[in-house]
Parts: sequence; structure tokens; C-alpha cells
Amino acid sequence: MPKKRLLNTGIILKVLGLLLMFESFFMISSLVFAFYYNESVIPVLLSAVITFVSGGLLFLLTVKNKNKNIGKREGFMIVTTAWTVISLFGSLPYLISGAIPSFTDAYFETISGFTTTGASILNNIEALPKNILYWRAMTHWIGGMGIIVLSVAILPFLGVGGMQLFVAEMPGITPDKLHPRITGTAKRFWGIYVLLTLVEILLLWAGEMNLFDSVCHSFATLATGGFSTKNNSIAGFTPYSQYIIIIFMFLAGTNFTLHYFSLHGQFKKVVKNEEFKVYFYVTLVVAVVLTAGLIFFMNKDVETAFRDALFTVVSILTTTGFVTADYILWPSYLWMLIFALMFLGGMAGSTGGGVKIIRHILLIKNSWTELKRSIHPNAVIPVKYGKRIVNRQIIFNVMAFFLIYILFFSLGTFVMALIGLDFESSVGASIASLGNIGPGIGGVGPVENYSFIPPLGKWMLSFLMLIGRLELFTVLVIFSPSFWRI
Amino acid sequence: MPKKRLLNTGIILKVLGLLLMFESFFMISSLVFAFYYNESVIPVLLSAVITFVSGGLLFLLTVKNKNKNIGKREGFMIVTTAWTVISLFGSLPYLISGAIPSFTDAYFETISGFTTTGASILNNIEALPKNILYWRAMTHWIGGMGIIVLSVAILPFLGVGGMQLFVAEMPGITPDKLHPRITGTAKRFWGIYVLLTLVEILLLWAGEMNLFDSVCHSFATLATGGFSTKNNSIAGFTPYSQYIIIIFMFLAGTNFTLHYFSLHGQFKKVVKNEEFKVYFYVTLVVAVVLTAGLIFFMNKDVETAFRDALFTVVSILTTTGFVTADYILWPSYLWMLIFALMFLGGMAGSTGGGVKIIRHILLIKNSWTELKRSIHPNAVIPVKYGKRIVNRQIIFNVMAFFLIYILFFSLGTFVMALIGLDFESSVGASIASLGNIGPGIGGVGPVENYSFIPPLGKWMLSFLMLIGRLELFTVLVIFSPSFWRI
Repeated sequence: MPKKRLLNTGIILKVLGLLLMFESFFMISSLVFAFYYNESVIPVLLSAVITFVSGGLLFLLTVKNKNKNIGKREGFMIVTTAWTVISLFGSLPYLISGAIPSFTDAYFETISGFTTTGASILNNIEALPKNILYWRAMTHWIGGMGIIVLSVAILPFLGVGGMQLFVAEMPGITPDKLHPRITGTAKRFWGIYVLLTLVEILLLWAGEMNLFDSVCHSFATLATGGFSTKNNSIAGFTPYSQYIIIIFMFLAGTNFTLHYFSLHGQFKKVVKNEEFKVYFYVTLVVAVVLTAGLIFFMNKDVETAFRDALFTVVSILTTTGFVTADYILWPSYLWMLIFALMFLGGMAGSTGGGVKIIRHILLIKNSWTELKRSIHPNAVIPVKYGKRIVNRQIIFNVMAFFLIYILFFSLGTFVMALIGLDFESSVGASIASLGNIGPGIGGVGPVENYSFIPPLGKWMLSFLMLIGRLELFTVLVIFSPSFWRI
Repeated sequence: MPKKRLLNTGIILKVLGLLLMFESFFMISSLVFAFYYNESVIPVLLSAVITFVSGGLLFLLTVKNKNKNIGKREGFMIVTTAWTVISLFGSLPYLISGAIPSFTDAYFETISGFTTTGASILNNIEALPKNILYWRAMTHWIGGMGIIVLSVAILPFLGVGGMQLFVAEMPGITPDKLHPRITGTAKRFWGIYVLLTLVEILLLWAGEMNLFDSVCHSFATLATGGFSTKNNSIAGFTPYSQYIIIIFMFLAGTNFTLHYFSLHGQFKKVVKNEEFKVYFYVTLVVAVVLTAGLIFFMNKDVETAFRDALFTVVSILTTTGFVTADYILWPSYLWMLIFALMFLGGMAGSTGGGVKIIRHILLIKNSWTELKRSIHPNAVIPVKYGKRIVNRQIIFNVMAFFLIYILFFSLGTFVMALIGLDFESSVGASIASLGNIGPGIGGVGPVENYSFIPPLGKWMLSFLMLIGRLELFTVLVIFSPSFWRI
């Protein structure tokens, strides 16, 4: 084993300080709606000041640190602490405004935002001041930005869970250096993210939504978050708005590398992408089956059935979690299709959560290959993805990822049962949090919320959201003794 | 790839013919109880004749076949067809006696017997003639014998799912030749199997059970089957009998290699065995936790709580499925512990079903190793089992096994939901069949049975029992095109 050096805590704190200062600027943007709707500016302003000062102090304390060495271990620490600390300060507007008086609840709502989960403890969303609801949507949007830089730049560099695979075709990505990735690729992808957000805002605004609702829902869509400004989510909006949101949820769940190719006219690369094909056909096939089911068993008219089916499939598959129909009321074999989608997730390199489709492709291909190997034990049968042979180490990593995923899903389910939830609700809360989806099944179904869960359960679910969002390994390695052994 | 030769169907049919003739002899043994209890001998006698003649014809038709070449592909075909065809003829006594008039039901009950699952469609077990109930227990016992030869001789030879690992310490086992294994190791293990069965019969007979009940329950125990002769399973027997059954279920779920070592005084090899340690401590810890739970929340007295807890843990972990307490009535976080055990299974090389503990050990060790590899990507960190480095190909195989297991569990659950079962019953029926356990959760809980499930569901569950029992690959490779490509 290579000799280890001390963890460079200076650089970790410095980056955290910088991130907190950025967060405070985003908070300040909430004031636009506070002024517009004549609401008190104090809560958000005070939160922003506290956040900026804390971040500034961290930065100043470490500015003299000349060690700019960011290794893997620093990378893991920065990512994990970033999401937890930013959520801590991000809960200030809820606490100071009194919108969410309990710290546990406020932290749950904030980390649910930053992890782009969209699970809420609010019983009456519409009662909150508009500027606080804007901040709530903003936590999604910031989280989505974080996920982009994480998935295209940091995770492939850290070698987490096969994430290096999907960026392999991207030009100009060097596998071993972090700096050029962040400054180059991530900036380009942020540009796409901002562009798509603006287009969705305009399209929604052109419909019946006002600017405030358009902005909040667009933030939540592009981040595949799911926080709405309405108590009944997207159900009350017109079919036009629902279709717009379907399209943008689907785009948000697509690998941003493909958007980059599309913008450069390289559509061939998009349609030939294996993961995209599976993403597209899974969406289509499940939506068609559900449409037929809803027409036949729920007596819905064709258009409503198709819209509800497609909306639900895209919303759950991309792990957004917006709702237009209460799928729990559908026959159980129909909502169990939705439940199955919860274990898939969006494409790698998108803002979507979950296991990710590329991992399932590799797992299924490898299982099939193992069957062949049983018959020809001496033959070398490689697993291919996109015409290239996949390194066995990556497959190993992906399989370990999936097993740890199942392990934490089971653990989460068990803890939920322990604190008194029934079987379906336990299963639903666990996968909806770990997969960053939001709505689950049972007592945490699409028209329910998480307010009734005891504090211990909320902290457990917050932890699941965090490790799910950060692709498990990023958080879990920190708990491994060999991380700390020098 | 090596050049393939035509499948040697002659040898496959010959082996099947031999097995059917053996089956008919076992059927004949039922007549002892038919005479003793003054029951009609016709159904079993007729079944035995039909089975013997069919087997004899197969044997005679292929006796001129001089090609004795049994390769891997012949091995896979023999194993899969053996279990299905033997179940077909094994259902004759039920059908001819009229005890189970429906073919679907009779086949379900028989394959549930031969796969040592113990899932029943009988609403009133005690109404059946004793000699038919004896045959029902006998299907378990024959199935158990089959599993022993399968797990110690055939599967390691076929290289299925890491099964070669646990026999590595066994003296005289050559990895590449099938014949000496079957004649040597399997015979020794059958001796242990018969010996343990006889000891249990005597011990149960020494209690309040009559000879008939002692024999039937011993057959079902050693095979980790679970068919009882009583409607309320083991609940009506004295604590003495229950403790005897606990001990023998535990022994049946232990790797038979360890029994062999014990009989040769090599106890050190037993207590140092990694899989045995996990098997032992999981049993102990879960039983203690459940005991505490039952005392505290169900107000049971200490001895009853301990006995019910230990019995249930051992019965489910070894995939036997005998019942003394309706665990579904316990608080959900207690029965969910039982539910979790359903995914573990017994030790490899035992008659127990399920994923097997050794696979979980390897999966967890490898996941942990992957975490370490994330920090030291260039370090070579092997997975060790019993002080030896485990070949990565075996770990690959085990991971593929687990994923396919989860896939079929999900598929089974979905099919059950499709035919109208609720979520818990669907999940329960699927894992109880795939893991060869018997009782599940929900509508197929410990005091329920499978009679209410529509035919399609029964066939699906029969298929799950088969692939679960034959370690998935053995059956599934037959559906792979490269199995048939010449």
C-alpha cells in the first residue's frame, strides 16, 4: 500500500468556506420575491449574513494554507461535508422565519432539497411565505448544480461505482487530474443546466403559471427534485404545463454529455448511446402498459390515462417525484411497476438519483455473461458497453455498489419498521429516500408527506438521502478505518 | 470457444430412467404404513408400477448407448430434468388416491416436497391417508438426498455460484472429475444423512410422538423441508419434541462436511469454519433479540419466548419452515427480522436452501474491500475466506448469483401481484418459494397455505422453487442460446 499523508484539512475547510459564501448569494436572490410579495426580508437576509460570515471566517482562517493538494481522501471529505454543512446553513431561513420551527424538520426539508429528493414534512405548503418557498426550490437547483460537477468531474476522478464509464466518450476529459475537469466540463454542463432551466421557465410562464410558480417548478424539474409550491403538486395545473414538465423531467434525467452532443449537432451519438436507448424504451414501454391499465381498469379517458401514466413514469424514473395522480389508488400490479422503477433511477451524468440505468445494464450483461461462462468455463467472454470491453474492475465496483445499495435499503426499511411504520410504508420511505425520489408507497405515498415520522426516522431518512445522492461510496469510505490510518 | 459436441441425450435419459426406478422403490416403502393403518394399497402401488415401468422403458431404450460421456451440459440437463420429471411421477399417489384431485395442486405439492420447500396447498392435512402423508414426507427426504449429491459433487463440478469453495478443504475431492466424487463423498454424506435421520426418529419416538409422526417429521427435518403431518405443524407437540426438532433442523442446515469432520473427531475444523461461525452467531443473536422482544412486547414467559424465538429463527434460517408460533402476529419489526432471515439461507453443503451464508460472507467482504479500493485504487487487496485468497472469478460468480436471485424474487413478486395478491403476500410467496422455505409473510404466513392462489401463480411458484433449489444457474443456462449452439 502506498504511504499515506495527513488529511489536508486546510483545503477542505477552505472549499467549505467558499461554498458557504456562494450559498449566501443564492439565498439573497430569494429577496426578489420577498420584495415583490411584500414579505418580511429579515429571515432570509439574516440567514444569508450568518452563512456568509461563517463561510468567510472559514476561508480567512485557512487562506494562509499553501498546501493546495487535493487527493482522493480530501475529495471524499469535501463532498460529504459540503452536502451536510450546506444543508445545516440552508435550514436557517425555515427556522428563523418560523415556517418550520423544529430543527429536525427543517434539516430534513433542507437536505431533502439539496439532495434533490423532494420528500417534505410540510402539511400545508401554500401557507409558507413565497420567498421561503423560492428558497426551498432553490435548494433543489443548487443541489442539481452540485450533482453535475460531482458526476462529471469528481466521482469519475474518485473512481466511484463505475461513474468513469459514462464520461469516457466525452472529449477533453483527463482521467487523473481533477482541476481541468471542473473548470472545463463542469462549466459547460452548468451552461446547459442554466439554459434548460430558462427555457422551461419561459415555457411554463407562457402557460397558466405565474413567474414565481414557473421559476420554482423549473428549479425543481431540472434538479429532478420534486418540491412544488402547491399542496397537490402538479395535479392542479393544465395538461400543457404537465406535458412541459414531463419533457423537462426527461431531459433532466438524461446524461448531460448527450445534451452537449445535441447542441453540437452530433445526434448520432445520442441515439446510439446504449444507456439512452434503455432509458427511452423503459419509459415508453412502462408508460404504454400503464396507459392501457388505466384505461381498462380505472375507466380513464385515453388522453388523461396517457398523461397520468407518462407523467408518473418519468417523474419516478428520473427520481423527480412530482405528482399528478395518486398511483397508490391504482391496482397493486400497476403501482408495483412504479415501485420497480424506484430501483432504476435516471441516467448517469444526469441530475437524477437512484442506482442509475447504466449500472443495471452492466449488472444484467454480466449476469448473462456468467451464465455463458458456466457452460464455457475456459472461454474469455468480456462484458461490452458501447462496443468497448468493460474493465472487470468497474463491474466489480458496480456490483459492490448495488449490494451496498440493497443493504442500506434493507437497513432503512428495518429502522422504519422499528419506529412503528407498517411494512409498505417502511419499504416506501426507505427507497424513496435512498433513491432521492420523494414519494414512496404506503403511508408515504404520492399524496402523503413525511411529517408523521418520529425524529429518529427523519434522521435515518436524511442519512439515506445523503448516501444515495453521493453514490454511497463517497460517504461510506469515510467510515472505513483504512481511510484514517496513516 | 471450444468446439461443441452434440448433447448426449442417451445418457440423460438413461440416468432419468434409473432415477425413476429408484423413486418407485421409495414409493413402495409407503405400503408399510398402508398395511399398518389398514389403508388402501392401490394408489401407491399403482403409482410405483407406473413409475417403475416408465423408468425401466427409458433405461432399456438407452441401454445400448455406449457413449458414457457426461459433460457439463449433460450435467445441467440431468439435474433440471431429474427434479421436474421425478416430481411429475411423484404426484401420482396424490392424484390416484384422490387426496389432491387437481393436477396443478398435486404437482405443486410434489415439487414443493422434492425441492424441500414445504409450501402446501392442503387445507386439512390430517384428513389424508397416513401412507400418502408418509409419501409426502418421503418426497422431502429424497429431495434432501438429491441436494447432498448436488451440492457436494455436481455443483462444484459444474462450477455453479461459488459452490466449489466450501468443499475445498474436503480430502479426496478432485475438482475436475465427476465420477469419484459421487461414488466417494456423496456416499459418505448419505451415510451421515441416514444416521442423523435415524437418531432423530428415535429421539422423537422416545417422546410423545408415535413412530409414524416421528418418521415423517424426521424426514422433513433432515431435508429442511417442513411438511408436517399435523394441521398446526409443530405447535401441538411438547417442548421436548420441539427442542429435538430445533437441534436437528440446525444440524440439517450445517455443511455436511463439518459433520464428517465431527465424526472423525476434528472439532477444531468445525469451530474454526468461518461460515459456521456466522451461521451460529446469526442464529444466537437473532434468537436472543426475538426472545427479549417476545417477553417484553407479547408478555410471554421466558421459556416459551425463548423456545418460540429459537424455533422460528432456526426453522426460517435453515429454510425448513416448521411452525410453532404465528410470527405474523408479532410486532412488525420482530417479524421483519424473520423476513430478513429468509434472504440468508442455510450453509452451503447442507440441505438448506436460500442464498446460503457463504455467499453473503463473500458479498459483504468484497463490498468492504471495494471501499478500501476506492481509497487505494492501485493497491491489490484480495478477498480472503478461511485464510485463503478467493479467486476473483468465484466472487464474480457469487455476485451474479445474488443479482439473478434478486431479479427472480422481484419477478415472482410482480407476477403474484398481477394475479391479485396484495403486496405483502406477493413478496412473501415469492421469497418463500425461491428460498425453499415454505411459510412467507402476509396471506402466505406461517398458519396459512397456498391453496387460494390461482393456477398460474402456483406454476410460477413451482418454477421459483425449482430454480431456487438448483442454485439458479443450473436451470437458467438451459435457456441460454449458447447452451444449444453447436
